[in-house]
Amino acid sequence: MSPFTGSTPRTARWHHLRLDIDRGVATVTLARPAKLNALTFGAYADLRDLLAELSRERSVRALVLDGEGRGFCSGGDVDEIIGATLALDTAQLLDFNRMTGQVVRALRECPFPVVAALHGVAAGAGAVLALAADFRIADPTTRFAFLFTRVGLSGGDMGAAYLLPRVVGLGHATRLLMLGEPVLAPEAERIGLLSELTEEGGAGERAAELARRLADGPALALAQTKALLTSELDMPLAASIELDAATQALLMNGEDYAEFHAAFTEKRPPKWRGC
Amino acid sequence: MSPFTGSTPRTARWHHLRLDIDRGVATVTLARPAKLNALTFGAYADLRDLLAELSRERSVRALVLDGEGRGFCSGGDVDEIIGATLALDTAQLLDFNRMTGQVVRALRECPFPVVAALHGVAAGAGAVLALAADFRIADPTTRFAFLFTRVGLSGGDMGAAYLLPRVVGLGHATRLLMLGEPVLAPEAERIGLLSELTEEGGAGERAAELARRLADGPALALAQTKALLTSELDMPLAASIELDAATQALLMNGEDYAEFHAAFTEKRPPKWRGC
Amino acid sequence: MSPFTGSTPRTARWHHLRLDIDRGVATVTLARPAKLNALTFGAYADLRDLLAELSRERSVRALVLDGEGRGFCSGGDVDEIIGATLALDTAQLLDFNRMTGQVVRALRECPFPVVAALHGVAAGAGAVLALAADFRIADPTTRFAFLFTRVGLSGGDMGAAYLLPRVVGLGHATRLLMLGEPVLAPEAERIGLLSELTEEGGAGERAAELARRLADGPALALAQTKALLTSELDMPLAASIELDAATQALLMNGEDYAEFHAAFTEKRPPKWRGC
Repeated sequence: MSPFTGSTPRTARWHHLRLDIDRGVATVTLARPAKLNALTFGAYADLRDLLAELSRERSVRALVLDGEGRGFCSGGDVDEIIGATLALDTAQLLDFNRMTGQVVRALRECPFPVVAALHGVAAGAGAVLALAADFRIADPTTRFAFLFTRVGLSGGDMGAAYLLPRVVGLGHATRLLMLGEPVLAPEAERIGLLSELTEEGGAGERAAELARRLADGPALALAQTKALLTSELDMPLAASIELDAATQALLMNGEDYAEFHAAFTEKRPPKWRGC
Repeated sequence: MSPFTGSTPRTARWHHLRLDIDRGVATVTLARPAKLNALTFGAYADLRDLLAELSRERSVRALVLDGEGRGFCSGGDVDEIIGATLALDTAQLLDFNRMTGQVVRALRECPFPVVAALHGVAAGAGAVLALAADFRIADPTTRFAFLFTRVGLSGGDMGAAYLLPRVVGLGHATRLLMLGEPVLAPEAERIGLLSELTEEGGAGERAAELARRLADGPALALAQTKALLTSELDMPLAASIELDAATQALLMNGEDYAEFHAAFTEKRPPKWRGC
Repeated sequence: MSPFTGSTPRTARWHHLRLDIDRGVATVTLARPAKLNALTFGAYADLRDLLAELSRERSVRALVLDGEGRGFCSGGDVDEIIGATLALDTAQLLDFNRMTGQVVRALRECPFPVVAALHGVAAGAGAVLALAADFRIADPTTRFAFLFTRVGLSGGDMGAAYLLPRVVGLGHATRLLMLGEPVLAPEAERIGLLSELTEEGGAGERAAELARRLADGPALALAQTKALLTSELDMPLAASIELDAATQALLMNGEDYAEFHAAFTEKRPPKWRGC
């Protein structure tokens, strides 16, 4: 538990998603399978709030994001989001879009790696949630579609126009965001959108294995690796190198670095403490 | 027609290139086939001025850039550019290079997608014009060559040292700009330089089809997608997400978003108005 | 020789690496083969100082970085670096990490292209030295491993979290830096980490050929190409295009540009002077 714990209690029950925590691995499941896990106002708000709560604690060291049923996530619900937003005023529209963006910021800025376990459809906001993860483990049924322009909106939704060119390059990103066409698993792998392609039905298990390995690893070193990858996309070379130097000096004062050396000398595996 | 129309008339006739406009699709053809469409001072100036004119109007919703004859564009003419620049003074040299850069800025900043239709040689400035397009549709005869160092100049010409690493990554970009060697279509496809590889002789037709589809689509949503892709290369994550939120709120107030929902509900294709 | 030569003499003998200079090509060899060229405090300091010395002169126009024996470089020595840093105080730890970062800055900012000739292991700091080069010529035995998290440190070491996403994209970079797993030559080629894959044992020869070609080329044009590639990663589009314009205007006033035109007109190869 972090010493920086305020008065806010943990939320006891999440209504719009499912949460399991097992020895440092949080698994967040989009659980509305009858609607292909289409997102609602409540689901976005829960993702925003849950990630904020988990980021305040030290107990979570890796997070799996998956979807129940036939696909990962079909994006914003046509009625409950698109229909409902047509009735919102301008300030409310800005609020809604800021909230969805906050989910992506939280995924990029939380102090633990996020592993998306993908199968079936990952469309619209579902594709961007996957894009904001650190790892995308997908099975061959996975089908991305950044289909925002298909509904008359900008392809740059929730940071997609920032993130996608930095993952697959500007050429592919332009094509994917402008046209909104399906990207099947082989293409996704070829252009660098996947971390790993598994056998059919195998993404959940591989994601769980990876999250377990990450949670059992040197947690502070991994958290800082993520923080530097996120920060240095927005920093010049010289400042990035200075940040790296300060970070390594910090970690070289830490317990896990000494533990590595002791374990190496004693020819045994290190026991990581995460600090 | 845009309400923000000043006194400047449209240019009635372009001397250094060919322009056709058909229901929202502008086709700009480099038309000096006897010289492999080698660029001249006049051709650069016309591209700069034409893109500025088209950007002021609302009538153009997609642009195809192609080249007549055996290749797309062989770059700056050895005599009319390289020879002629040897006689320029320093201020004139700076003017010339700013003009060529303005063409690339105009291609990146114009409010409609640009589709380059490629075949044969795309060399020097021709390669950079293609690079600055949003889509590169190429047939198997296409051969890029960023050959600036071959003439004693920097590989960073007209923004190439900015754009190419963001399209194909720093490693490939360094190799291509330093060595200036030909990049044949299969390699171009493999490293992410192509949007689509067609059959031989098929690039023009596919580019026209794509431009037609884009021009018939939700024009403002597509224009904003392009603007965000261009802008967010130069923006940090949090600011990009804020820009996305403001942009989506804007478009959710627009007609095309409501039209999508109405069409979806009525099970018919949307009729996009572009606003 | 540069006119901007101060009082500092060239270092006559380098204790921690081997240096050969032949007609503009400097070859720097990590030469501690019994330890797979594991780096020591002295080796980092020599790389930092050597690159600074070579950057002050005009005589070096390309640099090859290679490793003697069974591999390129296994990274920081477990005893002489990891063990030794455990005894350093915080200020010394910062000094050490700044020094290693200065080597990467020097590789990116020196006014000549750097060609890494790779075989066998390129691990930890060895992987980052290769990453900071302009060209990575590798044979099929090459095995990268960014194994910093394996020793309890951040994957963002010496600029790796800045450079790697810009070479292979954020997705692959996250996987490589977080997990520290070996990247074999075929995967390295597929994700854009290699400039060229040679036959087994052929990387040294190909790197020497490339460095020779670069050193015999238009040195100022190549140096500026490298400088723009490095700088424009950190610059917005409009400023990059302005920098390109100023650079080309500068080079169009130079001797090599005029020489190209004369040689082309006289149908002979250009004799580059490098200015």
